[in-house]
Amino acid sequence: MIKAGIIGGAGYTAGELLRLLVNHPEVEITFVNSTSNAGNPIVNVHEGLIGDTDLVFTDQLPLDEIDVLFFCTAHGDTKKFMESHTLPTGLKVVDLSMDYRLAAPEHDFVYGLPELNKERIKSAKHIANPGCFATCIQLALLPLAKNQLLHENVMVNAITGSTGAGVKPGATSHFSWRNNNLSIYKPFAHQHVPEIKQSLRQLQCSFNSDIDFIPYRGDFARGILATLVVNCKANADSLYQMFNDYYAEDPFVHVTESNLDLKQVVNTNKCLIHIEKHEDKLLIVSCIDNLLKGASGQAVQNMNLLFGLDETTGLKLKPSAF
Amino acid sequence: MIKAGIIGGAGYTAGELLRLLVNHPEVEITFVNSTSNAGNPIVNVHEGLIGDTDLVFTDQLPLDEIDVLFFCTAHGDTKKFMESHTLPTGLKVVDLSMDYRLAAPEHDFVYGLPELNKERIKSAKHIANPGCFATCIQLALLPLAKNQLLHENVMVNAITGSTGAGVKPGATSHFSWRNNNLSIYKPFAHQHVPEIKQSLRQLQCSFNSDIDFIPYRGDFARGILATLVVNCKANADSLYQMFNDYYAEDPFVHVTESNLDLKQVVNTNKCLIHIEKHEDKLLIVSCIDNLLKGASGQAVQNMNLLFGLDETTGLKLKPSAF
Amino acid sequence: MIKAGIIGGAGYTAGELLRLLVNHPEVEITFVNSTSNAGNPIVNVHEGLIGDTDLVFTDQLPLDEIDVLFFCTAHGDTKKFMESHTLPTGLKVVDLSMDYRLAAPEHDFVYGLPELNKERIKSAKHIANPGCFATCIQLALLPLAKNQLLHENVMVNAITGSTGAGVKPGATSHFSWRNNNLSIYKPFAHQHVPEIKQSLRQLQCSFNSDIDFIPYRGDFARGILATLVVNCKANADSLYQMFNDYYAEDPFVHVTESNLDLKQVVNTNKCLIHIEKHEDKLLIVSCIDNLLKGASGQAVQNMNLLFGLDETTGLKLKPSAF
Amino acid sequence: MIKAGIIGGAGYTAGELLRLLVNHPEVEITFVNSTSNAGNPIVNVHEGLIGDTDLVFTDQLPLDEIDVLFFCTAHGDTKKFMESHTLPTGLKVVDLSMDYRLAAPEHDFVYGLPELNKERIKSAKHIANPGCFATCIQLALLPLAKNQLLHENVMVNAITGSTGAGVKPGATSHFSWRNNNLSIYKPFAHQHVPEIKQSLRQLQCSFNSDIDFIPYRGDFARGILATLVVNCKANADSLYQMFNDYYAEDPFVHVTESNLDLKQVVNTNKCLIHIEKHEDKLLIVSCIDNLLKGASGQAVQNMNLLFGLDETTGLKLKPSAF
Repeated sequence: MIKAGIIGGAGYTAGELLRLLVNHPEVEITFVNSTSNAGNPIVNVHEGLIGDTDLVFTDQLPLDEIDVLFFCTAHGDTKKFMESHTLPTGLKVVDLSMDYRLAAPEHDFVYGLPELNKERIKSAKHIANPGCFATCIQLALLPLAKNQLLHENVMVNAITGSTGAGVKPGATSHFSWRNNNLSIYKPFAHQHVPEIKQSLRQLQCSFNSDIDFIPYRGDFARGILATLVVNCKANADSLYQMFNDYYAEDPFVHVTESNLDLKQVVNTNKCLIHIEKHEDKLLIVSCIDNLLKGASGQAVQNMNLLFGLDETTGLKLKPSAF
Repeated sequence: MIKAGIIGGAGYTAGELLRLLVNHPEVEITFVNSTSNAGNPIVNVHEGLIGDTDLVFTDQLPLDEIDVLFFCTAHGDTKKFMESHTLPTGLKVVDLSMDYRLAAPEHDFVYGLPELNKERIKSAKHIANPGCFATCIQLALLPLAKNQLLHENVMVNAITGSTGAGVKPGATSHFSWRNNNLSIYKPFAHQHVPEIKQSLRQLQCSFNSDIDFIPYRGDFARGILATLVVNCKANADSLYQMFNDYYAEDPFVHVTESNLDLKQVVNTNKCLIHIEKHEDKLLIVSCIDNLLKGASGQAVQNMNLLFGLDETTGLKLKPSAF
Repeated sequence: MIKAGIIGGAGYTAGELLRLLVNHPEVEITFVNSTSNAGNPIVNVHEGLIGDTDLVFTDQLPLDEIDVLFFCTAHGDTKKFMESHTLPTGLKVVDLSMDYRLAAPEHDFVYGLPELNKERIKSAKHIANPGCFATCIQLALLPLAKNQLLHENVMVNAITGSTGAGVKPGATSHFSWRNNNLSIYKPFAHQHVPEIKQSLRQLQCSFNSDIDFIPYRGDFARGILATLVVNCKANADSLYQMFNDYYAEDPFVHVTESNLDLKQVVNTNKCLIHIEKHEDKLLIVSCIDNLLKGASGQAVQNMNLLFGLDETTGLKLKPSAF
Repeated sequence: MIKAGIIGGAGYTAGELLRLLVNHPEVEITFVNSTSNAGNPIVNVHEGLIGDTDLVFTDQLPLDEIDVLFFCTAHGDTKKFMESHTLPTGLKVVDLSMDYRLAAPEHDFVYGLPELNKERIKSAKHIANPGCFATCIQLALLPLAKNQLLHENVMVNAITGSTGAGVKPGATSHFSWRNNNLSIYKPFAHQHVPEIKQSLRQLQCSFNSDIDFIPYRGDFARGILATLVVNCKANADSLYQMFNDYYAEDPFVHVTESNLDLKQVVNTNKCLIHIEKHEDKLLIVSCIDNLLKGASGQAVQNMNLLFGLDETTGLKLKPSAF
């Protein structure tokens, strides 16, 4: 059994990670660290776990007792922790924050998008788990980059559920405001764009265009649906071939000729992709569950790869569908 | 023109009151007092008012310049204000808090349910505006009390929208939690029960039973739907007659033989009531918009009565319907 | 009083028109024609009207008794009606279908977008009321066309509420499916694009680019939020000036420097517009209520203009806000 | 491997059953019969299954090839089928319709509520799977019946998600109507009451009171939350003891002293129960997912028992939580 510890256990990604790990056949949760909740049973904080676990939050950090450490910390806090602690040799790390997603000489974190870096992940020690929007958008573009087809700006509109903004309540997560509402935020300036560009350049080093990304706040809790438009000469048939070839060995990504809807992926670790040509314009629709393939599901997928398990272990989830 | 001032202008009931008063043909808003927002245009705080008003929040209280003062304050704060200020003679007050809803020798506030106290309101100076649940439940029961028919406990289940809980964000108003969710709170112990009993006893002094009230948090923003069950020997026809007679002069209350749904009243000042007999059990369904008939709409209705206007002035609202 | 008749009275736009007209101070509803509902009180079909009207659907068409006829018919049916009936001289028509939106020698309908054709509407006899998406998108672009600034393709993503798809139930309007869901439809092929292009060319005859429009089905009932991106050299200040100048005499369009959210316009006849420059890219956000400014509200606005009334008569609506 | 066939494969309960069975470690789906969809891949009909199965609907019925047959048919159709076909000896049946829920000399179906009839189910051949409301309400009452504590009428208010009404679109399942709406239906007359009474009498043969049940249509897709009120002299501690004792061997029912919310059970096979005493009144809150514990999850639980598997096999589901 893989012994797992979690730091930052009170947030949404930690809750989702716990909901996955309590049913994972190869994992034992050793500790869930949360300073603010120390002593409190996790069922009191994380929806849906009554009857599934007796775990209690702790303020202890028995790092010697675990095989893998998940950081579900706020952005910036993983880095602070890593710089102030010496981790046991051999302890593997999956960081869900954005602290180490951009490659740099100062760190050895591998960008944990299995559909891009599967072999590197298998032999890595430290994984930087991708952002939710970044995952959804990259999976829509990687086959194009692989085929050196990205030569112009990519227009991206993507709508996220409220869980993307975290557990802390505020004006834009207030039910009275958000219910039946829509708005955009950080247009052309979202923090996930650099990691998207990094990945595209990994496959197509000539890529030098903009990702013009407008994020929307949706009035639902889970999921991201993105539409991308880019000029492209290739025809639909050859594009389907490229996408299917690219994802041939990836169990969670499916390319479909049917129109999509978001709930097809909700409560799953899947990414569904649909493509259409309209004259020279290529339209790509991509959907994920932001808490699963966009966060904790992908973290477990990375953990599976780190420990030599089948990628799908513990991730064959029943879609909620409704 | 009636000159109006508002204290506690940053909350939901103040916003709704402003949305009503900017279009009220007989009212001029003189000031909107909010310490926390002084200097801020009200359109920056209250949804839906862009283009409708240039008003700015003030920390001033020019009480001499107004004819009517609305308190949209937190419970307890109206009383503190009244006890620490001397109001100009002749200034009328409509208090949306619960501070003066229960009659007491120490104050002269009239309970502002027009369907119960219309004549007293017309000649009053100080009005205690009823609670939202209290309004919805009382309107379902007043004709029974008037006809001395309440002899047993009344079972009430009522579901409220999130705006009933106010603007302050918290765990149970977080969109991620409340969306598609349901829960109950304060069963058998809601603070509106005493004002309901007070009104019932005003019409049926023998009333001495329980109001067994279970409030639910609904996953919508506006509205209250209540179902009430009470034993009653009268038949359906005579009950419809009693209800229709009772509300014959009340423009906002309609009794219908059709089944109801909540959105029939959303964004209106109406209360719709449907009744059914099932053997000896009487089922009553009652719906209001909690921010209108349950708060700010009723406050304007009371203001209209205080100043001799037609009760419906400024309150013939287009239902949102969808 | 203006005497009004409605054909096709059972649909959503007819319901919204009725909710407006019952409170319009200058209108008397003479008949509401619906073959399928003849004899049925309209409160049995249209949500929110209990207590507001005793009108009954009719299968009669007393065209001699009215001053204005509203077509709330399915696309194609207005044309069939016009071609098979002789209307009384002097009878004015507002057609909410798409049958006459594109100018043609065979008809004399004026395209009823008051912010484009106000003077022509005032003296017209027949009005083709614009489409909902078309209204939202045009209002975002007209000031640019007026200033001859549209030289490249315009990327439009716009999300509509379910009422845009009408009352007939189907797979994509089933609550179980649509709740918390998102999807796109008719990308690059929506039927409103031609009327948008027609209006842009009216102001900028050189306009010869594409409107690349991706419509989304949103999981809310009312409203459209559109984001538009187009290359443009003008700076933000001069653009705000152009937009404010263009809409200086239009009471329902407001340009704001604040970020928008959809519910600011829900249950109003407003269009709110926000603009931002990001290097050479101009982002425009535009919001309307699809049933009001996008359909029945605009129909009433057109009627007001046809009969010499103030444009806002009967349209100063309380926003629902929540 | 258990070989399973499904009749009536196009509805919601069949879809949910398929989402469970594709991941069930001991089941192989042999056929999914649907006359209307014969030849159509099931992923084209059932949300969430893309990538999970290549199954195609069939109009064939190879009953000889299966070990268990699930009826996901409309009420009445199972009976018609059973009366017009001779099933292979040894074929086990789980019927999700209401045709055989009430015991009768003419049939040998066992009422498939494992928390009531576990041993009988294990040795049964034919199972009548309980109704969704019936499951939620019975689980709230069985420990009281077991302890002979039901002597007065039970007041039940229960709110269901839209999936309870099935896939066929109609007025009350139209998104535009149901979104943010609430209504009741069939008060005091719901078809699940007889099976509830049958179960209560099985444990407390003296039970002779009414189940006064008001069902509500909620504006969410999945789940049922019920509140029950009944007079009861026992104190809270002893009641908790009774409930915990009753469910000691039932892995899906959990009794909690904390207040509940519906999403704690959504996408799980759990039933959560919370109880409170208020003087002599006992309040019970009970929640299930109507498609899982209320239908297809319970059907799989029954199948597990029929074939000697652990009751939870294939049913340790990740809660959706949001």
